[in-house]
Amino acid sequence: MPSWIRDCWYVIAWDHEIAPASDTGPLFSRTVLGEPIVVLRAADGTPVALEDRCCHRHAPLSRGRREGDSVRCGYHGLRFDLDGRCVEAPGMERPPARAQVRRYPVAVRNGWVFVWPGDPARADPAWLPDNFSCAQLQWHHRPGYLHYDANWLLICDNLLDFSHLSYVHERTLGGSVAIAQARPEIDPIDGPGAPGIRVRRFVPDIDTPPYYRAMGVTVPRVDRWFDYDFVLPGTLLMASGGRPAGQAPDDPRDTVRLHSCQTLTPETEHTTHYFFQQSHRGDVADPALVDGMFRVLTAAFEEDRQMITAQARTIALDPTRRMLPLHIDAALLRFRDLVAQARAREAGADTAAVPAARVVA
Amino acid sequence: MPSWIRDCWYVIAWDHEIAPASDTGPLFSRTVLGEPIVVLRAADGTPVALEDRCCHRHAPLSRGRREGDSVRCGYHGLRFDLDGRCVEAPGMERPPARAQVRRYPVAVRNGWVFVWPGDPARADPAWLPDNFSCAQLQWHHRPGYLHYDANWLLICDNLLDFSHLSYVHERTLGGSVAIAQARPEIDPIDGPGAPGIRVRRFVPDIDTPPYYRAMGVTVPRVDRWFDYDFVLPGTLLMASGGRPAGQAPDDPRDTVRLHSCQTLTPETEHTTHYFFQQSHRGDVADPALVDGMFRVLTAAFEEDRQMITAQARTIALDPTRRMLPLHIDAALLRFRDLVAQARAREAGADTAAVPAARVVA
Amino acid sequence: MPSWIRDCWYVIAWDHEIAPASDTGPLFSRTVLGEPIVVLRAADGTPVALEDRCCHRHAPLSRGRREGDSVRCGYHGLRFDLDGRCVEAPGMERPPARAQVRRYPVAVRNGWVFVWPGDPARADPAWLPDNFSCAQLQWHHRPGYLHYDANWLLICDNLLDFSHLSYVHERTLGGSVAIAQARPEIDPIDGPGAPGIRVRRFVPDIDTPPYYRAMGVTVPRVDRWFDYDFVLPGTLLMASGGRPAGQAPDDPRDTVRLHSCQTLTPETEHTTHYFFQQSHRGDVADPALVDGMFRVLTAAFEEDRQMITAQARTIALDPTRRMLPLHIDAALLRFRDLVAQARAREAGADTAAVPAARVVA
Repeated sequence: MPSWIRDCWYVIAWDHEIAPASDTGPLFSRTVLGEPIVVLRAADGTPVALEDRCCHRHAPLSRGRREGDSVRCGYHGLRFDLDGRCVEAPGMERPPARAQVRRYPVAVRNGWVFVWPGDPARADPAWLPDNFSCAQLQWHHRPGYLHYDANWLLICDNLLDFSHLSYVHERTLGGSVAIAQARPEIDPIDGPGAPGIRVRRFVPDIDTPPYYRAMGVTVPRVDRWFDYDFVLPGTLLMASGGRPAGQAPDDPRDTVRLHSCQTLTPETEHTTHYFFQQSHRGDVADPALVDGMFRVLTAAFEEDRQMITAQARTIALDPTRRMLPLHIDAALLRFRDLVAQARAREAGADTAAVPAARVVA
Repeated sequence: MPSWIRDCWYVIAWDHEIAPASDTGPLFSRTVLGEPIVVLRAADGTPVALEDRCCHRHAPLSRGRREGDSVRCGYHGLRFDLDGRCVEAPGMERPPARAQVRRYPVAVRNGWVFVWPGDPARADPAWLPDNFSCAQLQWHHRPGYLHYDANWLLICDNLLDFSHLSYVHERTLGGSVAIAQARPEIDPIDGPGAPGIRVRRFVPDIDTPPYYRAMGVTVPRVDRWFDYDFVLPGTLLMASGGRPAGQAPDDPRDTVRLHSCQTLTPETEHTTHYFFQQSHRGDVADPALVDGMFRVLTAAFEEDRQMITAQARTIALDPTRRMLPLHIDAALLRFRDLVAQARAREAGADTAAVPAARVVA
Repeated sequence: MPSWIRDCWYVIAWDHEIAPASDTGPLFSRTVLGEPIVVLRAADGTPVALEDRCCHRHAPLSRGRREGDSVRCGYHGLRFDLDGRCVEAPGMERPPARAQVRRYPVAVRNGWVFVWPGDPARADPAWLPDNFSCAQLQWHHRPGYLHYDANWLLICDNLLDFSHLSYVHERTLGGSVAIAQARPEIDPIDGPGAPGIRVRRFVPDIDTPPYYRAMGVTVPRVDRWFDYDFVLPGTLLMASGGRPAGQAPDDPRDTVRLHSCQTLTPETEHTTHYFFQQSHRGDVADPALVDGMFRVLTAAFEEDRQMITAQARTIALDPTRRMLPLHIDAALLRFRDLVAQARAREAGADTAAVPAARVVA
């Protein structure tokens, strides 16, 4: 049984990855929760997500082509409108009513294209994350994407415990063991949006991380903060930054303010899509700075990927081995509880029966 | 349980792939229905097919070498005659009687080398297909081979529904949606040979396909026909062609006449050997034309391979999903019925209990 | 259920593969019996073998780094002493007592580093093999390592039946079918050390093998001998050599004396580590000769690897097929019996119930 939740919004693409309706090139396809999905645009530009599996013989529709407001399968020529209904079947006067492919609820918000793989009746726009910095002009970044050979939950774990910054990212994002030593505040997020965990961590008077120099910070020591929400299915929204150690919070001098949006979409049980960006605020974008920040970020995320895929390979050698929960796992254990509860609800089980993961050591 | 029939002739090689008896190079080996088979020639040139697995420790005999009318295993030196009997075991006076490898019934017909993986007592020469154009001098072609990462039945499906010519081969063999729209005549083949399906399709007055130009046809519109037998285990024998639209059948001017022999041999449940040729008739072979026709054919068959392996990957994402049979699937469904009945017979089951596949939409 | 024995010494590395304690480079890790193990040295140079899986989230410790007499996990910074106890957990005053990784019994003998994956209480130094020629100055060699995509027992089989020299190594180590025809003496080894099989083979008056020329032997025919012990888990210790055919044993002229130590360590059920050397005796090492002998040996062992991995692939096509035991298999069958008995003992079964493998043909 897969480890994921179906009733959730999953990012399938950056908005700019989907070609305009007029494009005649290859169609965009990506697999989400083990389901192949083709994404194209209606004439008005709205993205449409259809099952990328012709109902006839299961050829991928993305190997066919667009014809006006329809997609024609490249194998036997069945043609589907953008609601997924077959409107033409070669050699038949009228296609059978059952000839249709699934159409997924789609939402676009701030440059992310979401699909809802679960029950369409439960697709709730309130559960879309507030990834504002992906689209606001004052927030500068390059959009990122990584493919992972690891289960999505291992990457959630990583994002829910920033103590790893001190070790995995010692030379990129980290720079001090104090991050690992700072005990974060952890609170539930129960609002009308997707459930999640709020994690806030303040780390006073530590070495300025290497990449701050590129942003003009020259003081050797800073106070840093990391405040983020991590919400279902696996989305991180973080305000972070730093200012000269001891400087008043309302003094804007030499202050770095960042906002990061990152989200995980299971491709299969063992592979994951990772969409991410980290923005810095400024009235004018400096392309060299934006590119430099992106290079630091992708170098750091590659450090994570190396570690997490090595972890996944080690787990695969003996999946029966138990992990040892520590206090630093408090946030990730709570999040895994949220996932377990959501899965139990989807399975129709009594969620009260889901035992909470506990820190036992 | 594998999807194939055992009691059938399967092509293991083109005749020219098997070296002469005098050859001292590597031995020829290919896996058929999951069984490794080494093929070599007796002194008189007759191909012999032996299990490519030494009975002693299961080393492949094909890693050994020929010694006169015998094969010596390259691991511990057991030597087998061409009946598969061990005639020498180093260190023993006389090899044990049980020391033998299986010898498969072999047939050679018109350049195809066949093996019969099933019960040798049932090996029936009448079941060999009439692949005459592979060998007759007036029929010109180059022999083709493709390896597929897909189950053999998906490729049978492809060959049993030519509506795909209009879409997969739009720019190579096809050229008109009329092929997909033409309803073929479909009849059973019950003769003394292998059971199968006869499919005949006449497509009047359509655009001349691109490759006809290489054969000297300059009219813009033609009448085309595709008449083929598709027989167990997975062999297509097709007479096809075209003439200027509306021209009398007995008027030979500007007429293209082709004969094609194609056959599928499962390597494993998920991989397939595909042997094929398409011949055109002529008193004298024009090498440039023969090569050009072969290039068009292999380009087209590569189009099939791309589509079918994409289809196989999509099916693998969820093998439980049902396909939607349409009228264009009539021939392939009947053929799948033949396969199901043959498998039930081999399993000793009551074939009346095998439900026929039906077009439900 | 895996095919190996746990209560045994397994070579994990050549001694020189493990960096000094002062080294700051990557840590050494290798998987043994499916368990990832990191090996490093204590301050006094003694190798220490720890489970290469942090108890916290199962990241490999070998992706961390050495800090004095401890290893720090590179993911969340847990630090372990060389007994495997966690001595620091970032963010905690004191690590929990349960935070530890397994430490394996280690032995170093003559350049081989051994680990004992089974019950430490049963780790018996008397079971270490006498691989003296790996370290004595008069015995010259280069240390060898090969990785195999095959189960370890198939390689044991190979080493327990030298009849293969005549065929697999016809052009390298072999040179005569007489090796295959010579019936060896086979005896049990019951001493206080690891149980095993003693195999002795004398092959009089055969062609001088090609590589003897490099050692100065110019006579065309030699008497050869191969005397070896093959002991659990899979270690060969062999004295072999040759002298001019018919020459008295106590006449040292033109005599080649070799000693070889080879050992197999299962990595997983389907992959194996192979450590080996073949030494020749001499007061002074001739680097050109040592290198030349190593090249012959590795060429020959690559011949084995090609054959055995082909055998493994053939077996994988149908693992249910039975092999046909012959007289030449007497030693390997006895050894497989030893393995079966040891596994039964480890499983707590009645070893009297383990049927002996028999030569049935």
